[in-house]
Amino acid sequence: MAEQDQRRIDELSAEECWALVATQVVGRLGVVIDGYPVIVPVNFAMDDEIVVLRMGAGTVSSAADRANVTFQVDSIDRDRRTGWSVLVRGLVEEVGADHGAALASTTSGSAAQPWAPGERAHLKRLIPHGVSGRQLLPGGLPDVWEADWYR
Amino acid sequence: MAEQDQRRIDELSAEECWALVATQVVGRLGVVIDGYPVIVPVNFAMDDEIVVLRMGAGTVSSAADRANVTFQVDSIDRDRRTGWSVLVRGLVEEVGADHGAALASTTSGSAAQPWAPGERAHLKRLIPHGVSGRQLLPGGLPDVWEADWYR
Repeated sequence: MAEQDQRRIDELSAEECWALVATQVVGRLGVVIDGYPVIVPVNFAMDDEIVVLRMGAGTVSSAADRANVTFQVDSIDRDRRTGWSVLVRGLVEEVGADHGAALASTTSGSAAQPWAPGERAHLKRLIPHGVSGRQLLPGGLPDVWEADWYR
Repeated sequence: MAEQDQRRIDELSAEECWALVATQVVGRLGVVIDGYPVIVPVNFAMDDEIVVLRMGAGTVSSAADRANVTFQVDSIDRDRRTGWSVLVRGLVEEVGADHGAALASTTSGSAAQPWAPGERAHLKRLIPHGVSGRQLLPGGLPDVWEADWYR
């Protein structure tokens, strides 16, 4: 595809992004609060390509509802030679109690543990608007994490 | 201090936050772009309590200049039993060429490698408005990562 030719060599396709996200159990939710892009780690699992977040009630949880948020997941080796980062942009909606019980029994995350039914966590679904990602290539420049890949 | 009594048991003091941040070499910069809280990994080093980011030019880099940003650093064990997360809120300013050369020779990050003088990376300083952090306590609830600690 012509679009593929223009893709940087280290850009990940949407399919690659979702596959990598599914390997993790903790991601970082971005929510704008008081003009700041607040970032907090959250547990999550995948329901197909829908990210299901498990969050307690609070400032960030309330601010996330029906707001444009981001969800970032990465795996970066400390010597900065390998790794990847994926950014999902989307909208968060609260999961109702009935739906929550069903999700708890069917959600399969990368962790082997399903969420216990009846756990009183707030579940939220992240409805994706877009996903992008970049892989850190071996032998890349020390400052290869040029933060310019968001588009 | 009375304030200390009201602190949650898992909240980190500012001093603890900065000490933990200094143990890492990659953090995540949060910048609001098109209404979304964009999150990208960036290399960084500490110059006392000033976070110095090393970023290439691009969309995120431009959006960060003179904007309210956040910088998040964490270390989370996959079994979710141990870990911590720190969030710095602040303002980013570009480091001038002269200042950049000096910083490159004096900045000591947790990595043993100083930045090579003459490297053409864009350096930015994050002037902190505030820092907060939370530690994940062993044996805590499975969903202890309640994303409500931002204040």
